[in-house]
Amino acid sequence: MQETQFQCVTIIGVGLLGASLGLAIKHHGLAARVNGVGRTGSPSNQKALEIGAIDQIFTDPAAAVPESDLVILASNVGQFPALMAAIAPALKPGTLVTDVGSTKQQVMKWAGKLLPATVDFIGSHPMAGSEKRGPENARVDLYRDALCLICPPKLRGRGAFTGSRVSAATKKIEQFWQAMAMRTHLLDAQQHDQWVALISHIPHAAACMTALVAGRNEEAGRAIAGGFVDTTRVASGDPAMWTDIFLTNRVQVNRNLNVAIQSLRKLQLAIRREDQQAVLEFLQLAKQRHESLLSRRDAR
Amino acid sequence: MQETQFQCVTIIGVGLLGASLGLAIKHHGLAARVNGVGRTGSPSNQKALEIGAIDQIFTDPAAAVPESDLVILASNVGQFPALMAAIAPALKPGTLVTDVGSTKQQVMKWAGKLLPATVDFIGSHPMAGSEKRGPENARVDLYRDALCLICPPKLRGRGAFTGSRVSAATKKIEQFWQAMAMRTHLLDAQQHDQWVALISHIPHAAACMTALVAGRNEEAGRAIAGGFVDTTRVASGDPAMWTDIFLTNRVQVNRNLNVAIQSLRKLQLAIRREDQQAVLEFLQLAKQRHESLLSRRDAR
Repeated sequence: MQETQFQCVTIIGVGLLGASLGLAIKHHGLAARVNGVGRTGSPSNQKALEIGAIDQIFTDPAAAVPESDLVILASNVGQFPALMAAIAPALKPGTLVTDVGSTKQQVMKWAGKLLPATVDFIGSHPMAGSEKRGPENARVDLYRDALCLICPPKLRGRGAFTGSRVSAATKKIEQFWQAMAMRTHLLDAQQHDQWVALISHIPHAAACMTALVAGRNEEAGRAIAGGFVDTTRVASGDPAMWTDIFLTNRVQVNRNLNVAIQSLRKLQLAIRREDQQAVLEFLQLAKQRHESLLSRRDAR
Repeated sequence: MQETQFQCVTIIGVGLLGASLGLAIKHHGLAARVNGVGRTGSPSNQKALEIGAIDQIFTDPAAAVPESDLVILASNVGQFPALMAAIAPALKPGTLVTDVGSTKQQVMKWAGKLLPATVDFIGSHPMAGSEKRGPENARVDLYRDALCLICPPKLRGRGAFTGSRVSAATKKIEQFWQAMAMRTHLLDAQQHDQWVALISHIPHAAACMTALVAGRNEEAGRAIAGGFVDTTRVASGDPAMWTDIFLTNRVQVNRNLNVAIQSLRKLQLAIRREDQQAVLEFLQLAKQRHESLLSRRDAR
């Protein structure tokens, strides 16, 4: 039996990610009590209570957190600054704060600026999700067996005491995700944002591009087969969530969009010239890189 | 019980598509006898015999076809002109010839030029396949419940007799695919090539682009999750097969690569400018087009 890690956990945002998290915390017995924070009037609030993801719903984040020893931001990343500012005065010293956001450099900066020095923010990015939304699609096993990337803050020469406090906080966050059967990997926020640009944000842009091109002739949809379905699946993701992701990782996304555009141009030129060898080499390199990447996958 | 449609069918090419076709023909009792044609010395030849996809293997296509009332080209599209030229003198009058190739305009032109006027070529494109290769991955149900696009030749004012012969041949080809539980849809070769550029060839280019971008940092492969796996799955397709596809549909692919590049540029510009509304609208339109396309899918 897993030992209860926390007395009171507050999850801010009770959509798919937040509600699934609540279900997993309860399933694994990781907290004595789970508070949820939702927007005033949102039907998600009642739903999250009904499915047992949370014990109580709040609409004021500052009212939810004072008793909490762990606070998890599970809204869209773009709402983090306002939420951090709202909870900052209400957090008790020693509270752990983390998130489930898809970008980290900007988030760590906000946390450093907006949260009090008496609490620890350790960034988390559980690599789990779905193109579906809302607590009605929540699943107790959404996070199970997936990878959670964890970013401790940079220490900026604060001295040994602060360093060991950050280490202890990081350890607790690692144990929290591991307790719900996730693998964890520590890395710094910059490296995190580089990785996810490559394996998540550019793929999302590619899926959207593909849907936009094909959507110019809806009739062609009649001939859709499995390849199109898989290649474009993520294009149904939540536009507001992805707007925040692209904008908070804009340096990496912009840089890699250049590479993406160049690679399409290269393919196009080879096709225009009917250069069979150049087309073949393009496809061979793509296949080879694809297989190398998949072989590195840190999967259970 | 399905009535035997053909006395002797010859399948030229005994890889994944050809061998799966042989299995399905036998399973549904569509031919009394199935000849296969493979390359001299290819291990696929023995494998196709072993799994019962074919009754006899030939390495000379001209030797395989004289008794056949249906000949199916199941090699890469780039080999079609040589194969058509090779079998042309050996085909008996009234033979039906079809294929399983992914492009049609160029293929119909080759058939019109290289095959004798005493036979009928009706283009087929069963929308089924896999990124796996070879008869060792053949499946009796590879084609089941999928869509087969069928392109009759243009009649170019040859008169009523020829027209009715083409209609009869088209009907037989439709019945052949339907007998193995495929849906069929008739369209002309130009429309076919437009459709598949949109729902298959551009998605393939997008998957390759994504793999090429991400593959620049193999280490990022550790964080791969389901989104990347789905978005790039087809990038592992056979490079030689896809070279032929891109080159035989180069006008449509080139045109739509322009649209693809423009759409990435538009996204990039919105991100660079931190134009939240423009990013959101891009993602909303992609999601909407994606869902409209999928709703048109002619699925069982």
